[in-house]
Amino acid sequence: MVEKKDKKEVHKQKLEKYEVETSKEIADKLQNIATNIVHQIEHNHSPTFSTRVRGLSNVYFDEKEGYIQLGDKTVTRPFLNLGAARKFMQTMIVNDKCCEYLKHDKTASIREIYYELKHTVENTKENTFDGQEESNDVIVDLEHSVNTIREKLGLHAEPRGSLYGDITLKDLKHNNDVFNCNSLGRGGWSIMSRIEPEEVEIVDVQAEMVLVIETAAMYNRLIEERYAHKHKAILVGTSGQAARGARRLIHRLHYEFKLPVVVFTDGDPYGWYIYSVLKSGSMALAAHSKYLAVPDAKYVGMTLTDVETYGLQNVTEKMKDGDVKRAKEMLDYQWFKSKEWQEQLKIAIDKKIRIEQQALANKSLDFVAKKYLPEKIENKIFLD
Amino acid sequence: MVEKKDKKEVHKQKLEKYEVETSKEIADKLQNIATNIVHQIEHNHSPTFSTRVRGLSNVYFDEKEGYIQLGDKTVTRPFLNLGAARKFMQTMIVNDKCCEYLKHDKTASIREIYYELKHTVENTKENTFDGQEESNDVIVDLEHSVNTIREKLGLHAEPRGSLYGDITLKDLKHNNDVFNCNSLGRGGWSIMSRIEPEEVEIVDVQAEMVLVIETAAMYNRLIEERYAHKHKAILVGTSGQAARGARRLIHRLHYEFKLPVVVFTDGDPYGWYIYSVLKSGSMALAAHSKYLAVPDAKYVGMTLTDVETYGLQNVTEKMKDGDVKRAKEMLDYQWFKSKEWQEQLKIAIDKKIRIEQQALANKSLDFVAKKYLPEKIENKIFLD
Repeated sequence: MVEKKDKKEVHKQKLEKYEVETSKEIADKLQNIATNIVHQIEHNHSPTFSTRVRGLSNVYFDEKEGYIQLGDKTVTRPFLNLGAARKFMQTMIVNDKCCEYLKHDKTASIREIYYELKHTVENTKENTFDGQEESNDVIVDLEHSVNTIREKLGLHAEPRGSLYGDITLKDLKHNNDVFNCNSLGRGGWSIMSRIEPEEVEIVDVQAEMVLVIETAAMYNRLIEERYAHKHKAILVGTSGQAARGARRLIHRLHYEFKLPVVVFTDGDPYGWYIYSVLKSGSMALAAHSKYLAVPDAKYVGMTLTDVETYGLQNVTEKMKDGDVKRAKEMLDYQWFKSKEWQEQLKIAIDKKIRIEQQALANKSLDFVAKKYLPEKIENKIFLD
Repeated sequence: MVEKKDKKEVHKQKLEKYEVETSKEIADKLQNIATNIVHQIEHNHSPTFSTRVRGLSNVYFDEKEGYIQLGDKTVTRPFLNLGAARKFMQTMIVNDKCCEYLKHDKTASIREIYYELKHTVENTKENTFDGQEESNDVIVDLEHSVNTIREKLGLHAEPRGSLYGDITLKDLKHNNDVFNCNSLGRGGWSIMSRIEPEEVEIVDVQAEMVLVIETAAMYNRLIEERYAHKHKAILVGTSGQAARGARRLIHRLHYEFKLPVVVFTDGDPYGWYIYSVLKSGSMALAAHSKYLAVPDAKYVGMTLTDVETYGLQNVTEKMKDGDVKRAKEMLDYQWFKSKEWQEQLKIAIDKKIRIEQQALANKSLDFVAKKYLPEKIENKIFLD
């Protein structure tokens, strides 16, 4: 019994260090927006709604934090303005719906809230929304206005990704299920779209690192080779660009459990971009880096230098023109300015080649697990 | 102890009814191909390799079985023929590699086997393969030659999809892990790329149907609404077109456990095609329908008739030209010849509208779980 209490205490402490705000606090903020507007109306003021300016003009790379940030510029939208009234109405109904979700412990996908709120406004021919991009836009406004992420508004995107390794989770909103992702066969756990601390507790992790893997096939390979056991790793298979649920999980493993994060993708601009989003955030979600980015994440491969080092010349692929263009753009990103990254990008642009994770099978199926990853990780041969 | 023995016996009986061939038997067949060729060479015959003809000329819809089949036409490929020698060599090295996988209990993705076997043939400038399409092609030849699926050759494609509900699985190749997909929080189990009976035992299922769901967001929704519990359903979220692992799992649940399969997709040609592949197989995999197709599967929705029935006129979407074209093609498919399907396709073509699963949120978030699905499933309002 004492032990149980201790565990709870430890969890609470971990969360206090990690968590920024509870969903109750967020709900109060949403409520406040509405209350203020009512107050403005009652005092014969034109109601206004403030949020942060988006777009490149207000995005910057925060050297100190090591991730992309949204600046302080704000915009105030008046209701009594022909151009802004429609958006104002949209903001209010999304605010109201999110309050309702939080109050009733419901969640919805961003597509569902769009459909749920879409209707023709009474006595008019106006639809509340003419497309999901309109509701998406308003959701981001709200996130910025109360300075949080959509997950804390009860919203989520499509889930994607799998989790494997000696990590015990507890779903506080589903019978308090406790399960260890080491004992789910070779499939692992299907990562939920929402991994908020109030909903999913990370009870225990017996591991020394988190290995994030771009392709499901490589995630499979490492499970088959028992890599997670031999090297005390938690495996996160992202199946492409990491979904928000996967990113939140990785973020929490890093900040709650101090686990180093190592990223393993295909050796091409798309794979490198997956890494950079995990590490430094993205321009589209500049305001959310503190919830999603892991600036200490390291990149283990694939690199184009690996091609020489491991004799993979025979199994490179030709890069598409679009990828070359992307590599050129990445040359200018502040978070790819290190000598090592510049070198990678230049090889990509010059030689127009890419190398896939699975190309390591050219050496042997178990080469990646027995030689490539252990050698690079133990010797810290990372790009940063 | 007696009970345990009984369980094993029951499992064995179930599998005997279900399983066609063991991987040991398949390995022997692969070995036989090689032995025969050696025999031919030793007797000064030009070695030959036989497989089944692919392509439309040898594909038909088997009315009796209710699925697409590959016909009996075969093709014999001689080694001593300039046009065929390269493919012959490719077939032999893939055959050899698959034998090795089966012998050492290894598996590989079809991309890995491509990379593993790609090299420059000694003393020539010839590569074994110039692209993955070449090795993929040879894999299909081999599947047809020994009349099985690639999973039984030790190969697999990318996994995708999630499993939720009161189903207990045992991974016989991973510490004999036993887990129930009801107790993994709201995420569920990440479906493996291979669900062969020799590797994964379905220990127990407490359910009355399998509900296959196209979108991950709807899979989420039904979990949040506790649909699986209330209606004794196993939920399979396919995240688009069902991957082979998901299809094998659904197939096994139907044939080993006699569970009815109900399919729930978006109301558009893409969603209907997902259903038709699950039910009747596909032309590309015509030879594998007996392993993958479930002719008894029923389609619950979305239908374009639902738009009227449930008052969803406000939340239909416009169909793209490509989808209209696809719907026109589907009019001619033998497995869409029922009066009801023809009606759906004609509405799609005439009105050029589609309706998404998530559009049901327009009624309320829980409408799909409390009204739409129960009403349609209990009253068997299906398309067949």
